Amino acid sequence: MKSEKTYNLVIAGFGGMGSYHGQLVEQAERIAVHGAYDPIEYRMDLARSRGYRTYDSFEAVLEDQEVDIVLIATPNDVHKELAVQALQAGKHVVCEKPVTVSSAELSEIVRAAEEAERVFTVHQNRRWDEDFLIVKDLVEKKKVGEVFHLESRVQGANGIPGDWRQLKAYGGGMLLDWGVHLLDQLLLLTNSRIESVHADLSYILGTEVDDGFTATIKFKDGLTAVIEVGTTNFIKLPRWYVKGTEGTAVIRDWDLSGEIVTRNREVEHVEPKPIQAGKGLTKTMAPPSEESTVRRPIEHVEDLSEGFYANLVSTLEGASKQAVPNNEVHRVLTLIEAIFESAENRSVIVREI
Amino acid sequence: MKSEKTYNLVIAGFGGMGSYHGQLVEQAERIAVHGAYDPIEYRMDLARSRGYRTYDSFEAVLEDQEVDIVLIATPNDVHKELAVQALQAGKHVVCEKPVTVSSAELSEIVRAAEEAERVFTVHQNRRWDEDFLIVKDLVEKKKVGEVFHLESRVQGANGIPGDWRQLKAYGGGMLLDWGVHLLDQLLLLTNSRIESVHADLSYILGTEVDDGFTATIKFKDGLTAVIEVGTTNFIKLPRWYVKGTEGTAVIRDWDLSGEIVTRNREVEHVEPKPIQAGKGLTKTMAPPSEESTVRRPIEHVEDLSEGFYANLVSTLEGASKQAVPNNEVHRVLTLIEAIFESAENRSVIVREI
Repeated sequence: MKSEKTYNLVIAGFGGMGSYHGQLVEQAERIAVHGAYDPIEYRMDLARSRGYRTYDSFEAVLEDQEVDIVLIATPNDVHKELAVQALQAGKHVVCEKPVTVSSAELSEIVRAAEEAERVFTVHQNRRWDEDFLIVKDLVEKKKVGEVFHLESRVQGANGIPGDWRQLKAYGGGMLLDWGVHLLDQLLLLTNSRIESVHADLSYILGTEVDDGFTATIKFKDGLTAVIEVGTTNFIKLPRWYVKGTEGTAVIRDWDLSGEIVTRNREVEHVEPKPIQAGKGLTKTMAPPSEESTVRRPIEHVEDLSEGFYANLVSTLEGASKQAVPNNEVHRVLTLIEAIFESAENRSVIVREI
Repeated sequence: MKSEKTYNLVIAGFGGMGSYHGQLVEQAERIAVHGAYDPIEYRMDLARSRGYRTYDSFEAVLEDQEVDIVLIATPNDVHKELAVQALQAGKHVVCEKPVTVSSAELSEIVRAAEEAERVFTVHQNRRWDEDFLIVKDLVEKKKVGEVFHLESRVQGANGIPGDWRQLKAYGGGMLLDWGVHLLDQLLLLTNSRIESVHADLSYILGTEVDDGFTATIKFKDGLTAVIEVGTTNFIKLPRWYVKGTEGTAVIRDWDLSGEIVTRNREVEHVEPKPIQAGKGLTKTMAPPSEESTVRRPIEHVEDLSEGFYANLVSTLEGASKQAVPNNEVHRVLTLIEAIFESAENRSVIVREI
């Protein structure tokens, strides 16, 4: 007979993300929100208004024998301490990203998980975003030929969220925020190791943490990538821009608008006509003739993978592997460290990652 | 009484650009195409069909006492030799860009011009492109506030033109082609010196010269710029992307389509609503609310400056300064050298330019 145990999860840190996890868990099967803990009193009121039991301290959560899983959605600086405590108390742990602000801290947590024989996993949830899955599909299916360059950007005009995310000691800044997602996605698009990293951080808003960054990442197989996060952009550049040997693909925004333009191999190549460009003519920068290219809309892809919490339940029962393996999370942190180092030292980091 | 002398110009190198200069000169006053020289015979036939006198050798051009000006539109590698010869023969010289492939060679030419007391000037003609003049105007008039970041790109899908521009020995490659224009324009947008340069060259087409490049240039006053040329792009990113403290401006193409979006200072700031972005919500990357921004089309600007050849005539008569001063041309070449160095050594060049 199959186990029909329902796993009890407690949310530690009941801010925006903690509350969002409550909704995710409620949508999943065989896992339930057992309660919440946050040192800020109004958040506990909010949790109670949702019908969640609340705890007086994190220790009280760990002492509760009915709790199977602790979800950590606190500011980033205390992730490690809370995770290690929870694992040592025999709980499984789900942690928000960035899991820690250094790869060494993550290694400590993973060791604690191994010793306690408990599952530790990080919620890098944008692996399931459809825009990313479309790009992954077109890279794998060579819809623009062999991809040799890609650009992944998110841009807003709203600055850094006005809480601990503006503070360095709490692991704030956009590289440790959206940066984690974009870099995690990038590393899933190729099997190649990284060869070098160059990055600039932006501090235009005058905060002590970066309000955005641009990183150029070169892989050993020749792929180059530009990853960019901006919070001072009143007009957005496309979310994805992908160049292959046969064409280019653009996804403009999360609405999945965009197009794929490829060389038309069916017709003989037609030389483009020179166009007027400012005070001169250019043939080099003329658009390819209409008949020599094929223009297609972005094709949606169906995501058949199980959701994050469904995967967690299977993992706890040994039936699945973690959807977000810890070594992949570790690699993202190592890359983030190289990005900080490049920006700080004004240098290109030539290092296998 | 004002001199009404008409200056006689001979075109040396009657390829695409030489022929184009013929048209420019024909549109100008007090300057005339006196003849053409090219070692390739069919080009001399073409020149004769236009009604131009032709010469048997470059020496014959220099010996012709009726010739006042020599226009050099040959492959880049022989610019210096021909320019110095022409100056020493007492001719004024107009040279196509890139004037030389090194800043040291340009210094040699400028010394020769000074010794011969003749005018030497370079045709960096995209200083008069309207897209550039619009950006210059919006930077100066602070239409998006203080500009702290700008991106200037030209992208095509047609590869490198299929002639000497694919060969290193002739000064080929896109950095020495469109790169010269975009860098020249950039340096006119600020009075600040450069602090550092990082660049990557692209060799995806398998040629011995670069088929495109991306350069990140930081100025001492805090301005950052991304300059990019691509010949493997089936979809174009915007020609200009300009970020200021009050907003963002985009010019999409040479048709001058685009827009300016700025903060609306008339209304109280309205927090944006979170939007669905893939598998999560984001407020940080939500577009600013409609009422809190002002959206305007790109305003055209009138170019009141004299044309290149009108300026040349005034310069020859001491009535104007050269529209393209040689020290500015020299600075562009120094910057190009730093770009090559950065890409070759995989390093950030920290150097005042």
